[in-house]
Amino acid sequence: MHKIDIYDTSLRDGAQTEGISYSVNDKILIAKKLDELGVDFIEGGWPGSNPKDLEFFKAAKKIKFKNSKLTAFGSTRRKDKTASKDPIINALAASGVKIITIFGKSWDLHVKDVLKVSPEENLKMISDTISYLKSKKIDVFYDAEHFFDGYKYNPDYALKTLLTAQGAGAGVIILCDTNGGTLTSEISEIILQVKPHIKAALGIHVHNDNAMAVANSVAAVQAGCTQVQGTINGYGERCGNADLCAIIPALQIKLGYRCIRDANLKDITEVSRYVTEVSNMKQQDNQPYVGTSAFAHKAGVHINAMVKNPLTYEHIRPQAVGNERRYLASELAGKTSILFKAKQLSFDLAKDGKDTQKLHQLIQKLEFEGYQFEAAEASFELLIKKTLQKYKKFFELEGFRVVVEKRQDNTLISEATVKISVNDKKRHTASEGDGPVNALDGALRKALQDFYPELSKMHLSDFKVRVLNSKAGTAAKVRVFIESQDEKSSWWTVGVSENIIEASWQALVDSIEYKLLKERREPK
Amino acid sequence: MHKIDIYDTSLRDGAQTEGISYSVNDKILIAKKLDELGVDFIEGGWPGSNPKDLEFFKAAKKIKFKNSKLTAFGSTRRKDKTASKDPIINALAASGVKIITIFGKSWDLHVKDVLKVSPEENLKMISDTISYLKSKKIDVFYDAEHFFDGYKYNPDYALKTLLTAQGAGAGVIILCDTNGGTLTSEISEIILQVKPHIKAALGIHVHNDNAMAVANSVAAVQAGCTQVQGTINGYGERCGNADLCAIIPALQIKLGYRCIRDANLKDITEVSRYVTEVSNMKQQDNQPYVGTSAFAHKAGVHINAMVKNPLTYEHIRPQAVGNERRYLASELAGKTSILFKAKQLSFDLAKDGKDTQKLHQLIQKLEFEGYQFEAAEASFELLIKKTLQKYKKFFELEGFRVVVEKRQDNTLISEATVKISVNDKKRHTASEGDGPVNALDGALRKALQDFYPELSKMHLSDFKVRVLNSKAGTAAKVRVFIESQDEKSSWWTVGVSENIIEASWQALVDSIEYKLLKERREPK
Repeated sequence: MHKIDIYDTSLRDGAQTEGISYSVNDKILIAKKLDELGVDFIEGGWPGSNPKDLEFFKAAKKIKFKNSKLTAFGSTRRKDKTASKDPIINALAASGVKIITIFGKSWDLHVKDVLKVSPEENLKMISDTISYLKSKKIDVFYDAEHFFDGYKYNPDYALKTLLTAQGAGAGVIILCDTNGGTLTSEISEIILQVKPHIKAALGIHVHNDNAMAVANSVAAVQAGCTQVQGTINGYGERCGNADLCAIIPALQIKLGYRCIRDANLKDITEVSRYVTEVSNMKQQDNQPYVGTSAFAHKAGVHINAMVKNPLTYEHIRPQAVGNERRYLASELAGKTSILFKAKQLSFDLAKDGKDTQKLHQLIQKLEFEGYQFEAAEASFELLIKKTLQKYKKFFELEGFRVVVEKRQDNTLISEATVKISVNDKKRHTASEGDGPVNALDGALRKALQDFYPELSKMHLSDFKVRVLNSKAGTAAKVRVFIESQDEKSSWWTVGVSENIIEASWQALVDSIEYKLLKERREPK
Repeated sequence: MHKIDIYDTSLRDGAQTEGISYSVNDKILIAKKLDELGVDFIEGGWPGSNPKDLEFFKAAKKIKFKNSKLTAFGSTRRKDKTASKDPIINALAASGVKIITIFGKSWDLHVKDVLKVSPEENLKMISDTISYLKSKKIDVFYDAEHFFDGYKYNPDYALKTLLTAQGAGAGVIILCDTNGGTLTSEISEIILQVKPHIKAALGIHVHNDNAMAVANSVAAVQAGCTQVQGTINGYGERCGNADLCAIIPALQIKLGYRCIRDANLKDITEVSRYVTEVSNMKQQDNQPYVGTSAFAHKAGVHINAMVKNPLTYEHIRPQAVGNERRYLASELAGKTSILFKAKQLSFDLAKDGKDTQKLHQLIQKLEFEGYQFEAAEASFELLIKKTLQKYKKFFELEGFRVVVEKRQDNTLISEATVKISVNDKKRHTASEGDGPVNALDGALRKALQDFYPELSKMHLSDFKVRVLNSKAGTAAKVRVFIESQDEKSSWWTVGVSENIIEASWQALVDSIEYKLLKERREPK
């Protein structure tokens, strides 16, 4: 089985997506996830282009990657400096990575109009930069920017830039369709022409402006490239980069290449959704392989045939990429997964029992309202216990009130009061906070602390808000996820309401109830 | 110039998209728009499969199409009836259209497992159905369902189904990749093998499960197909059909084929957005050719180069398809993009001027705090005007107060009061709402309505919340985006705070100020 190296540039090219703005911490979360998936290379950013990327490489030094190698990205040296005196090249070399990807110009139009140097000087910029980094014992991948456009305008010069990079010691030469407008037929044809001239390994890096990024990447591999650059979900500038979530399964399942471990293929859907969440983007329902609609059948004739033989309307088994089949017309989905989750939580339910039925209906209703339990298992466990009447309330709410006030001098005050009772003992407390939810959290803890001192050992560690029907404007429904943790574990809870305070309250209460339940649980 | 016929199936295959449910009127609106664009064929639906489609064909008889021909879609006859006695075939024939597209089985697996008839009976079903319709003076296009999968499993039989359809009089034979999993290389190869055997015109109909629908359609034309079936925006079951908004420009601009009139190419972006609206879907920002990000530049090096020569990072001129170039304001881009943005807004700033410096520093500071202006151009415009002191406040805030209260009986109340003044005239108003932000929105509008009645013409159309440093739990900072619209346009604004109410307030105030400014702007 031929190995194809997967080079992920989500953290650099993907960060150019309109609407994405990663914090250093976001980038670290994504890098760790990519390492788990087992891509070969993770391009962390362009140290020297902005302070955030410098900070990322500093933080990344402390991470021990199990499967992936971290790379940094940068341009050829400036036209008026030697590589050894160029501060950006030196920042790159100092980033601590063992592999650096350098991009340079292959299209003479760019050399003339953008760099404004002679064709010869551009070749020197390429060779100087690569030689200098190689002298520092750093491996270099060379991204031939605009290669396909350049080759169409001036094939001799474009080829010369590749040979220069190869001569200077680049280990892999990546042919880029930077503007994303090259047709699949041109990609194949040009690679077949170029390949005989190049001894180094070839890679492919394409954009999606023609809606052909995945087809072009696969065609490039068929024509002889052995490294594929792309991003999770195809994030990237303009119309995006090539979507690795489609390329990896196509190469591995359909063409028999090896990109990642076979056992990891089924993690692709989860990785796609995780990166979507961290990027705070909306997952595209119809995204190939990993979208929620990718294996959803709606037409009557299709569903009829699917029941007879799933091969009839599915190009691969959805499980192969960790996705699932859905039938839209008949709301059949669900029960199996409920039984499975209940079992994980040590509830043994019968497949056609009354409790299963009741739970199934309740969950369908709640999911229709916008709840989502996949990412909030603590709320799911509470829901099962409450439905099976295995649950005793820890406190009664008599009411809460949250006030946010802004004065003319811009002072902003958030205050909450909470009234609860535990076994008829009442508490009425108040708290200020950094915002309304923070104030509410404070007041509730104050009210419960005499009864449940163990709550002082837990704290909220994450908070997410997603607007569900955003077209309803400020009256839209929101879903809130809260993560809590104590010294032993962490857990997620969920709340949904048109009122963000109420949605947060639901998740807050679940989080506290789950903690109290956890403390009282019999050892299994 | 070689003509390629465009066959739009948005109203039939596109209606299978998860989340789309067209009324008869929606379908008529879309059909008229497609006729204006000038596609050759509009597939209206499957009369006989559901009452809505029957009604559509009845209504469509009254429409006089200027450029397009209406077609109906249906299956081969039932296995136990002759075509002349099959009620569904007769419903088709009675639909009033002059062209009917019949789909039949090319894959023996389907013949055996789904139809459960002999291979010979399937051939008879194909020929009977086509001959019967031809005898009624109706032209027939034949959709060879699952042709590519069928050909891979049993090429002889798959080819025999095509020859049967041709023998019975089908005018065009359309090769379908119904499951959408065929690779571009296979599409080209199989068509080149099949073409010498078929005298009829060939068409192509593919799905996007491999993210290759556009590439496959274009490759099919290069291999000799002269009809392309697809949908606007690539709507369709699972991962969708082939996106005509990408295929038409690729064939016409890049390969010199003629699909629609040259003069109509620039309408494609508008048609895409119109169909999005009628379908009540969200436009995909990064959709090739027609998305709002399709020609949006964010990376600093790209913007720098674009200023020198737009060919450098654009595969076609955005105007060619009626789209536009945008420069995003971003921390990665820096000064150049600020200057460009300012220029678009008719502010002429000097590159190294004091104002530019000040603006640049302020934006960097705000982006560090979590603001993001690339997706909130209205806030960006206000920021420029305020910084350049070209701005006069429309009202003074004296204070607001928001109360959310939950009672023991679960009643939930959100109330806001707002105190403002306009030219020393005070207003103090109150409003309830679906949540705290909705209540605040209501109270602010009430307070301003006497002074600015034009505000009744705008409303909030989208609302997004992102938690920035989610690890801070409920004390985390949040960024709120609000989209507003009036009858002419829509605009985005942004707010950031640890307090979600305050963040929403900022975006709300910007949105209102932008509207008021817009109304007062001198015609340029």
